[in-house]
Amino acid sequence: MPLSSGKSSIDLFFNPKSVVVVGSMGSPFFGARVVAFNMRKFGFKGQIYLVNPKYKSVDGFDVYPNVRSVPGEVDLAVIITSAEAVSGVIDDCGEKGVEAAVVVADGFAERGAKGAALQKRMVETARRWGIRVLGPNTIGVLDAWSGVVTNPYYIDYDSLRRGPVALVAQTGIIGPQAMSFCDMRLPLSKVCDLGNKCDVDESDILEYLGDDPGTKVIAMHLEDVKDGRRFMRVARKVTAEKPVIVLKPGKTEESARAVQSHTGAMAGNYAVYESAMKQAGILLVDTFQELLSIPKIFAYQPLPRGNRLGIVTITGGGGVMAIDAASRMGLRLAKLSRESIEKLASIHPSMASHPVDVGPAFPVSDDPRKLYKGSWSIVLNDENVDAAFITLYATRWFPHKEIAEELSRLRETGKPVAVWAYGPRIEDIVSLYQALEEAEVPFFFTIEEAIKALALTHHYAQIKEKLRKYVT
Amino acid sequence: MPLSSGKSSIDLFFNPKSVVVVGSMGSPFFGARVVAFNMRKFGFKGQIYLVNPKYKSVDGFDVYPNVRSVPGEVDLAVIITSAEAVSGVIDDCGEKGVEAAVVVADGFAERGAKGAALQKRMVETARRWGIRVLGPNTIGVLDAWSGVVTNPYYIDYDSLRRGPVALVAQTGIIGPQAMSFCDMRLPLSKVCDLGNKCDVDESDILEYLGDDPGTKVIAMHLEDVKDGRRFMRVARKVTAEKPVIVLKPGKTEESARAVQSHTGAMAGNYAVYESAMKQAGILLVDTFQELLSIPKIFAYQPLPRGNRLGIVTITGGGGVMAIDAASRMGLRLAKLSRESIEKLASIHPSMASHPVDVGPAFPVSDDPRKLYKGSWSIVLNDENVDAAFITLYATRWFPHKEIAEELSRLRETGKPVAVWAYGPRIEDIVSLYQALEEAEVPFFFTIEEAIKALALTHHYAQIKEKLRKYVT
Repeated sequence: MPLSSGKSSIDLFFNPKSVVVVGSMGSPFFGARVVAFNMRKFGFKGQIYLVNPKYKSVDGFDVYPNVRSVPGEVDLAVIITSAEAVSGVIDDCGEKGVEAAVVVADGFAERGAKGAALQKRMVETARRWGIRVLGPNTIGVLDAWSGVVTNPYYIDYDSLRRGPVALVAQTGIIGPQAMSFCDMRLPLSKVCDLGNKCDVDESDILEYLGDDPGTKVIAMHLEDVKDGRRFMRVARKVTAEKPVIVLKPGKTEESARAVQSHTGAMAGNYAVYESAMKQAGILLVDTFQELLSIPKIFAYQPLPRGNRLGIVTITGGGGVMAIDAASRMGLRLAKLSRESIEKLASIHPSMASHPVDVGPAFPVSDDPRKLYKGSWSIVLNDENVDAAFITLYATRWFPHKEIAEELSRLRETGKPVAVWAYGPRIEDIVSLYQALEEAEVPFFFTIEEAIKALALTHHYAQIKEKLRKYVT
Repeated sequence: MPLSSGKSSIDLFFNPKSVVVVGSMGSPFFGARVVAFNMRKFGFKGQIYLVNPKYKSVDGFDVYPNVRSVPGEVDLAVIITSAEAVSGVIDDCGEKGVEAAVVVADGFAERGAKGAALQKRMVETARRWGIRVLGPNTIGVLDAWSGVVTNPYYIDYDSLRRGPVALVAQTGIIGPQAMSFCDMRLPLSKVCDLGNKCDVDESDILEYLGDDPGTKVIAMHLEDVKDGRRFMRVARKVTAEKPVIVLKPGKTEESARAVQSHTGAMAGNYAVYESAMKQAGILLVDTFQELLSIPKIFAYQPLPRGNRLGIVTITGGGGVMAIDAASRMGLRLAKLSRESIEKLASIHPSMASHPVDVGPAFPVSDDPRKLYKGSWSIVLNDENVDAAFITLYATRWFPHKEIAEELSRLRETGKPVAVWAYGPRIEDIVSLYQALEEAEVPFFFTIEEAIKALALTHHYAQIKEKLRKYVT
């Protein structure tokens, strides 16, 4: 079923007016009841119906014996039953006029031949009724704006930060039950676990997110691609407007086999994917950690005009490591202007070189914050600098909010910044991290991740530039 | 000056009976007074003398006008004056009979020609008196057992975990003022910042740590190597007994230039170092984060007999990523015995494959801890498994201590384990991390770091095996 050119059928998954949740009610940690609880907690304002023949009501919700007997209209069904029961529930959904279903249930193609047969039957049933299916074997979707969250597990926090980052994965680890989204202050628009992709696939979701005005950057974990040609076509269109960051596991024969038992998919040849994805303007990352941490730099920061990196560090050793990483990733150390070097020298003679090391002057300064602020401003305002890597010392003696706001203000230079910090207490590192994120200054837990984030902003700026030339 | 064959002169830096600290007393955050405070805090039982002509006493310590006027014998001097004043202090140390000095002061070879001249004069002075000098431009040493800590900054915690990990670096970031050693529960023996290496160098320290019974694994950050031949000779000897892990920044022309302005050293050609270090049995890492996190696996865990990796995960997607990393790093996925697969199936049918994914069974289990424990034991006791990667879900609903103790007990299988965890709250991840470290189960913040740690235990086991064959 092709997507309509008007309102996407995929939108029903993220913005349903009403949801029916089918499944067990026994546990406060897993099941249909938990989905209803999570949706209310995350602010979903629409109607929620629960279905389970064994209950009459639970947690103040009326419980219906089946989907057909639900009183009002239903946009989206969330199905958390045994694999064997799903096709029957889909039939009920069809009769009810439901047009979209998240099949959370597992035990399908990922569990051998018998499961594959069940999945086939379920897809046939859904097709007959014209129902779009996300899954099976998925935690489904999260929409930070509508409050829809189909994940069947207890979520150990109450709020999300809304923002422009969309996450897509072929694994449930991307869900709010598993990731510290709240603590990370990750500015989320939408999250989607593709599961076994029996119907809705990465191309559908990418196209939808490409058109979504609330999404500015898209991060995708893909163990396979269902329709390579379509995906690359969609990606080329989306990457002209928004960065698309992809992690593609299953690089080796052994891991490709593991992909099959994970989501029933064929991982395919990595080199082929890599080349096609680069052609389509996709930014590739190597680790799950990068997939989570790098998107936010695109959410917060401007794209650089070139690859000349400014570095302000408080550790000379860290500055050298940053240059190593930068060279590997296509950035080069900027040559600061003579004027900048003179200004730096006037703050403290030990600071008059690049990388700018504020470390030696720190203990002899009457207000170390002046060293920070002075050097940041000089480096980011230097015409030979396109982007900056900043190292901070995390300590509770410095007001984290003040540091964050100062770095945030420097966005007016039109140049992206990435921060790495170290310090004697994990608590203070986390607190500084959160203050920076809240001020839209991206924080990274390693030097290399921060540099890679900056390198990818440069890389993406080049992609856009190339596409712009191509169009005009 | 060669090291004596008896008690190393280097030992004076780590185990002095008495210490004199020369420098400013004004700040509670930096200077000579802070060194005395830190040493008392970390349990140094020897004599501490303070020297500064402007003070009579501070914090209950008598303050002497110069080193010569200190009443008792002095083993070690810590010098935190201006660069210009250091040679004079060294002269005083010579007259007093001091044999070792940590020159914390900066402004030497790392700050151009004038500084290099000062450094030369200081070295000549020290040589004349037969004083070994560590530094200049260093935070010096930390000994977790003796309580010696020469770092001149305030340290934002009161205790260290003592253990077999030694850290050596050419940067002060390795010091307790900068690193969350306490929160990390890192089992430290000794820490040493080599600074500008005007006298004591990496070979001296490596040789000393090689002989130190309290040190089982040595991690070194080296921007340059002063005497390559000697270092490789010492390394060959030490790596036969203890793993030596090296991070060598300054890989590119640009970063090599930055090395020079950081510690006045010449970084040299990376490829040449890489090859020589591998020949000498050194394990190379790529990032500072790896340098900090990987040593502990050697502190806690046995060496594997082969490269066959067992994986127990709670995320199928994470399992695939682990195999990708393992293949890249020389490990391969173990083929579990039929007996193991049957045992796993008897716990839950969804667990009967490898990687073992406890995820699907988790929400339907009456006690998920049984899934954890059962699968860990089956995999680690499988004769086809040499090492295991374990993924945990960090939540406060599971007693972290119980999980940690169970994993700790599995060391009786003689196989190393590495853990990665994720979860909805950073606080719980940190708490689980600390519980695991306390139980001597190494925790890593990314999948790739955990796999690399296991890969390096395998790599080191091969190095030892080769050396053993060579000797017999």
